[in-house]
Amino acid sequence: MSSQAPPPDHPAFIRLPPWVKSKLRPFAIPIIQKVHDWVETECIPAEPVMRAQLAQDRWKTPKLMHELRKKAKSLGLFNLFLPNHFKESPGLTNLEYACCAEIMGRCYWAAQTMNCHAPETGNIELLAKYCTPEQKEKWLKPLMEGTMCSAYSMTEPDRASSDATNIGCSLRIEGDECIINGRKLYGNAQWNPELGFYILMACSDPENPNPWNRHTTVIVPARTKGLTMTRNLTIMGYDHAPEGHGEYVYENVRVPTANIILGPGRAFEIAQGRLGPGRIHHCMRLIGQCERAYELALIHAIDPAKKPRGKLIGAFDSNIERIADMRMGIDAMRLVVLNAADTMDIHGNKAGKYAIAQSKILVPIQAAKIIDECMQMFGGQGLTQHTPLPEMWTYARFVRVADGPDAAHRHQVGRDALKAAEGFRERHKTYNERHKEICRAWGVDPGLGGRAVEDLL
Amino acid sequence: MSSQAPPPDHPAFIRLPPWVKSKLRPFAIPIIQKVHDWVETECIPAEPVMRAQLAQDRWKTPKLMHELRKKAKSLGLFNLFLPNHFKESPGLTNLEYACCAEIMGRCYWAAQTMNCHAPETGNIELLAKYCTPEQKEKWLKPLMEGTMCSAYSMTEPDRASSDATNIGCSLRIEGDECIINGRKLYGNAQWNPELGFYILMACSDPENPNPWNRHTTVIVPARTKGLTMTRNLTIMGYDHAPEGHGEYVYENVRVPTANIILGPGRAFEIAQGRLGPGRIHHCMRLIGQCERAYELALIHAIDPAKKPRGKLIGAFDSNIERIADMRMGIDAMRLVVLNAADTMDIHGNKAGKYAIAQSKILVPIQAAKIIDECMQMFGGQGLTQHTPLPEMWTYARFVRVADGPDAAHRHQVGRDALKAAEGFRERHKTYNERHKEICRAWGVDPGLGGRAVEDLL
Amino acid sequence: MSSQAPPPDHPAFIRLPPWVKSKLRPFAIPIIQKVHDWVETECIPAEPVMRAQLAQDRWKTPKLMHELRKKAKSLGLFNLFLPNHFKESPGLTNLEYACCAEIMGRCYWAAQTMNCHAPETGNIELLAKYCTPEQKEKWLKPLMEGTMCSAYSMTEPDRASSDATNIGCSLRIEGDECIINGRKLYGNAQWNPELGFYILMACSDPENPNPWNRHTTVIVPARTKGLTMTRNLTIMGYDHAPEGHGEYVYENVRVPTANIILGPGRAFEIAQGRLGPGRIHHCMRLIGQCERAYELALIHAIDPAKKPRGKLIGAFDSNIERIADMRMGIDAMRLVVLNAADTMDIHGNKAGKYAIAQSKILVPIQAAKIIDECMQMFGGQGLTQHTPLPEMWTYARFVRVADGPDAAHRHQVGRDALKAAEGFRERHKTYNERHKEICRAWGVDPGLGGRAVEDLL
Amino acid sequence: MSSQAPPPDHPAFIRLPPWVKSKLRPFAIPIIQKVHDWVETECIPAEPVMRAQLAQDRWKTPKLMHELRKKAKSLGLFNLFLPNHFKESPGLTNLEYACCAEIMGRCYWAAQTMNCHAPETGNIELLAKYCTPEQKEKWLKPLMEGTMCSAYSMTEPDRASSDATNIGCSLRIEGDECIINGRKLYGNAQWNPELGFYILMACSDPENPNPWNRHTTVIVPARTKGLTMTRNLTIMGYDHAPEGHGEYVYENVRVPTANIILGPGRAFEIAQGRLGPGRIHHCMRLIGQCERAYELALIHAIDPAKKPRGKLIGAFDSNIERIADMRMGIDAMRLVVLNAADTMDIHGNKAGKYAIAQSKILVPIQAAKIIDECMQMFGGQGLTQHTPLPEMWTYARFVRVADGPDAAHRHQVGRDALKAAEGFRERHKTYNERHKEICRAWGVDPGLGGRAVEDLL
Repeated sequence: MSSQAPPPDHPAFIRLPPWVKSKLRPFAIPIIQKVHDWVETECIPAEPVMRAQLAQDRWKTPKLMHELRKKAKSLGLFNLFLPNHFKESPGLTNLEYACCAEIMGRCYWAAQTMNCHAPETGNIELLAKYCTPEQKEKWLKPLMEGTMCSAYSMTEPDRASSDATNIGCSLRIEGDECIINGRKLYGNAQWNPELGFYILMACSDPENPNPWNRHTTVIVPARTKGLTMTRNLTIMGYDHAPEGHGEYVYENVRVPTANIILGPGRAFEIAQGRLGPGRIHHCMRLIGQCERAYELALIHAIDPAKKPRGKLIGAFDSNIERIADMRMGIDAMRLVVLNAADTMDIHGNKAGKYAIAQSKILVPIQAAKIIDECMQMFGGQGLTQHTPLPEMWTYARFVRVADGPDAAHRHQVGRDALKAAEGFRERHKTYNERHKEICRAWGVDPGLGGRAVEDLL
Repeated sequence: MSSQAPPPDHPAFIRLPPWVKSKLRPFAIPIIQKVHDWVETECIPAEPVMRAQLAQDRWKTPKLMHELRKKAKSLGLFNLFLPNHFKESPGLTNLEYACCAEIMGRCYWAAQTMNCHAPETGNIELLAKYCTPEQKEKWLKPLMEGTMCSAYSMTEPDRASSDATNIGCSLRIEGDECIINGRKLYGNAQWNPELGFYILMACSDPENPNPWNRHTTVIVPARTKGLTMTRNLTIMGYDHAPEGHGEYVYENVRVPTANIILGPGRAFEIAQGRLGPGRIHHCMRLIGQCERAYELALIHAIDPAKKPRGKLIGAFDSNIERIADMRMGIDAMRLVVLNAADTMDIHGNKAGKYAIAQSKILVPIQAAKIIDECMQMFGGQGLTQHTPLPEMWTYARFVRVADGPDAAHRHQVGRDALKAAEGFRERHKTYNERHKEICRAWGVDPGLGGRAVEDLL
Repeated sequence: MSSQAPPPDHPAFIRLPPWVKSKLRPFAIPIIQKVHDWVETECIPAEPVMRAQLAQDRWKTPKLMHELRKKAKSLGLFNLFLPNHFKESPGLTNLEYACCAEIMGRCYWAAQTMNCHAPETGNIELLAKYCTPEQKEKWLKPLMEGTMCSAYSMTEPDRASSDATNIGCSLRIEGDECIINGRKLYGNAQWNPELGFYILMACSDPENPNPWNRHTTVIVPARTKGLTMTRNLTIMGYDHAPEGHGEYVYENVRVPTANIILGPGRAFEIAQGRLGPGRIHHCMRLIGQCERAYELALIHAIDPAKKPRGKLIGAFDSNIERIADMRMGIDAMRLVVLNAADTMDIHGNKAGKYAIAQSKILVPIQAAKIIDECMQMFGGQGLTQHTPLPEMWTYARFVRVADGPDAAHRHQVGRDALKAAEGFRERHKTYNERHKEICRAWGVDPGLGGRAVEDLL
Repeated sequence: MSSQAPPPDHPAFIRLPPWVKSKLRPFAIPIIQKVHDWVETECIPAEPVMRAQLAQDRWKTPKLMHELRKKAKSLGLFNLFLPNHFKESPGLTNLEYACCAEIMGRCYWAAQTMNCHAPETGNIELLAKYCTPEQKEKWLKPLMEGTMCSAYSMTEPDRASSDATNIGCSLRIEGDECIINGRKLYGNAQWNPELGFYILMACSDPENPNPWNRHTTVIVPARTKGLTMTRNLTIMGYDHAPEGHGEYVYENVRVPTANIILGPGRAFEIAQGRLGPGRIHHCMRLIGQCERAYELALIHAIDPAKKPRGKLIGAFDSNIERIADMRMGIDAMRLVVLNAADTMDIHGNKAGKYAIAQSKILVPIQAAKIIDECMQMFGGQGLTQHTPLPEMWTYARFVRVADGPDAAHRHQVGRDALKAAEGFRERHKTYNERHKEICRAWGVDPGLGGRAVEDLL
């Protein structure tokens, strides 16, 4: 039996696997509890108020959000995502933060109250990792203090930008200025007055023989001349205001070369370091969403007012099976993502690449499926605003294309996996040699009755 | 080889199975072609204009829709859905109309331009079937002429109304008036000024020992005092304005008993006759949607601007397999639904019940899956308003709960299917008896090596 | 309502869709009934006897089979599969025979009693189509009379022979003899003394610049010198004796050039004509199997001895849903295959290619799934010889790789489907032009709010 | 970063998640390595010899097996499965043994060489847990020493014995003898001369009002008079000789009451303690099987002799996606099972019940799917004895019904999960109360725009 004291019997820890509980440090346990209490008391019950405020003034951050962010910051709940190997970090490991992220996921916008939302998290990590002290002071500090927000701009409408070497938005350096021309999709909405800047990936050296050295990452202040957001991009019909997703035109946009991160031509170096942890956060938040969807489905299952053919919905054994499948599916996803977070903690982001991709591919599909099942258990009501399920489903669906569609990740995993094939072939050759020895020892003809697939090699 | 001339090589007929082509009468062929040309020329290219007009005045039928309806009516494209056994019918069979419905499905609102949209179709059929001549004059005529629109109101927020015997909205008869109290969900939006009336199912005789005789169907004019729409119901975030879906309170709503259809207590008689063909229309429209989604995916697959890792999207053999699966999936669905339509034509709606349920269960799931796959092939863009795919997916998803969730239909099919079990048992007993004879003839011990499952009966 | 009289209410016709019933000619109806009665009375009840006889002498056709074949022949039930456009045909259309094939599928070996089993059917059709009168007399006649049986030999162990241009078994012509060297997989077992000959596909002209002209089809008598069957190939552990599947070595095997079919280098011409109808037969037999598996599951569902937690298995609503899914799945498959058969009848095998591939891809997967579900409903017993389900599942699984694995067919369908993409692009260009006209007419800016995916082309 | 030294870079540890590696004690690491080397060197290469020996004398343990068992025992590789809380245990935790079990799974019969095969493992654990010292001396000792083998007999042909309260085989006590009558299915084959005894579950007190006290577990020596094995049960056609699965008749079988375990009426107490760890072993072995199947598929993917359409099988991106899905699927299963093993170690078998059920339900389905995919990648060859894949698939399929079919376990999980529903309702009531406070604070009407699903409670 484990020597380490497990965390107290607080609902924040109930579904964590034992190996995770035993890894949570005494430092982390009260933080996770605080996150839990914050979401339960200040976020979920405030959802209708947030909706009401947003309905009034769609493209402005609601007052409630401002107030909650101020309060969360004062409670020390800000920027928890930044892993403890950064000096700016509040001190959690990826694993510990993953436990927080699941809880945050229960309310669509809870992460934002704690400055732990995408794309802020990825941007903050990027700036913390690659910026000069001057750049940090100017761009990182306000982000971490929550006085500014930022966007990441990579996807393009005219290219298959899931393969980022295709990115074509042009950046030309003239003296101490970059001149940018092109079109972009996604990236938080310029219409939101709080948006401070875009972190833009552009093509600065299209003729460079090495396609990985052609691109540059640069900071573009949100209200720079020549940068226009032509419209908001909806996701399955949702505008996701006020952050939203934009469609942009860059027309001779000029920014100082001082805004270049790490140096010209080094965009891929940056991009590779950026996305790992953010994918884990998305996945854990999706798991938290699923837990909430699952709770709603179970409440519906015992609702005495809803009795088709005279039985509670939860009394139908088909629904009992569905509930079991959901329960097991959510718990299996959690094991995958927490293992990825733990792998990053132990071996670093790069070694964790496979486990991160595994999470990114498996979780959104499974989450969308589970939430869809919950909607279906609610009948017609499940698709309406009576439940938060449609928004949840949309978020899960969105993550299947965010940071590149499933297939791109799956190809990467498959190509890496195939590298082991040669080793397997060697292994089976060894089997065959040993097989012949054993056949000899037992007087069996290795070529006939004894023939196995290995012979066919 | 078929003696009957197949329809000309017009795109409207290209994917119809040969047996369907050979059943289309010379009368029907030009109508189907006209529907095709109408949708291609007047509807699909006008989608952005419809969207723009709707954006300006959300809860009013756009002018474009009015104009298109007038024009379609003048072209004889109105009310095509009403099967040829009604005297009001323009003369198509269910099978022939199914071919039209698929084409209409290519544009979300095309059916409405031809007065062939839900819930109008079901309501018109209901009124044509069960109303007195006086009622027809007052309610059916304006619907068929397209000067009024209507709603069907059955679902309730407080009950498991997928089992309609649970419906609780109360209707009390006092003299020549009905007094109605209760809450309803769905039913087209009262906010739309064109809405003429609700066809309401309410409970008039809750103590009747026969639960199938407790309910009454009555026409409630849309602007009757006491009837309030408290809000619009969104479907996966879409408001579907101006028709929409409402949430209603009935507070001492009074309507004349002359508005009762067929008589008090006869709601189930009506309900059973109502939904069959409408389900087929939904399914065929979903197939038309899928064809359009599939076309968009294929166009994307050969888009020279989109080349991840240097290859056209359609050059990846994984996508080639996906395209094959979509192609075959759509064609298989069509066979199911056309068979249901044909079964109704030959044996009537009641005998077609199973085939209708089969369509209703299989098609929306498959359609949502195919459209989802198309969205995924588009990457991030697929979820945005750059394509009509998100709206298409939402419609397919909606049909999974419309007219009762899948599971309710599946239970019905399964319970009916189980009725055959006794017959199967008899059949296997016959096998066993014959089996013993054969064993005797061949000198085989029937009890040992020869034992089969049938022995275990 | 259909004018044509539907077939009588005989169980052989019960699940046929109305459009099929109305196409069955008075000539065909009694034949289908006879097939039904034959399978019900002489085949299914004799299964344990067949098993017992096979257990005694594994590599010899059981006496029971001989007797049944004699009797079936005398009843005119022989060779029904050969379509009515052949002069040797008993006169059924593909559609009519498909109805027979489903019935035959209810018993694993029933088709063999009627000389309608693979590979005999494909071989007979091939010989009837491509042989000279002399060849027909020698090889086709005994097959059709049932006095000899044959094999088809194409697959090779050392090549990816699903792409038949890879076939490497060498055939060299010397004077009036062919000399054959190579290895083959599959093809009925030489160990069976009744086997008369192999129809072999071999490479006769490896340097021919046209890869479709390199191969030759030749008849190899089963007991030719130099041809050895090194072992029987099991399929999922089943030896499928006495027909079986072999593994062969050809070592300087000599056959007269008179045995070449159609001429040297024409193997692909032959191969393309061979497989269509056979695939439809497999698929219909699988559907017949599924019906039988389904019946066993339903009998189990009402077995009063089997009551987990006090309820009949069929009283669990999860099983009711499963039964509904099986019922609908089987019926949907049937529509797909019957449409393929009908398409061949109306437009010929070549035009039916897509519908045949659709059947070949969709049906075995679905059939295996349904039979698997039936096994699972039986619990532990379902996997044992207490039921015929394991053999049924294995047959369905086998058809997924027979005549090339799913993926090969799916690729072919997908590649053909992609040919339509250019046409779709044109169609959407037309939409865009019309769209601009409509925008102008309504004063909507076509470039902004009105922008659609078509603009992106 | 973890302080504990990870195990060396030996292939036995390569795919273990970091958290597992860090939990393996220095004591366990060399044992796991020895198991790995044993399976690689002595088992896998000997498979064809084992097959050849079995083919010669089907119902006798092959000499090779005897020799391997002797050798494995001398190497200290015997009985590793027995967890370290038993005094008879060699000292591994469940987690550490799980790592061994995966390796054993790579060869179908490797576990048997180490006396770690079902049903021995469950039986040994049962006897170690519940027997008196005298019983242990007589029955447990020879099992652990590997000089005898045993069977577990519970399932019945005439009952739904997945619900074990239905078990009807009668046990009557007369003096110091039990008299047993009934029929049983499964349980290792009496035909195997090495079989020592059956652990039988029978109904001794059918009238007991408490259905959980009606049954008794008793040891029945294999060759007791009156006990007959009427035939071997095949599993998907495999006889699994010489252990096999039997069909038994008990006719007045008499055994001493001293053979009763724990006492009359206590069978359920025993049954509940028995199956947990065994399920984990099955699941880990299936994972080992999947790894081997996956290796074979990858070797095939780079086989230069197999190039359909000129490309390596592994060069098709559809196969690359399939390989990725297999890789991720196997790794996700491993996380689930290892977590279950760890949970048993930390909290005991009872607390691990859910995690065990989760493994038992999810793993066999997923394993069968992955192995099926590997077979398909091999084309026709994949279903034959050229690969071990068909046997692997059959084992995975078998585990879906072993110890009760999926649905029984799923129902149990679902019913347990539903117990949380009341708590969720309370939680949402709390949300609602807090929601009203927040609404008041912000001046939002809680009844209208702000209404959420919680309101509907």
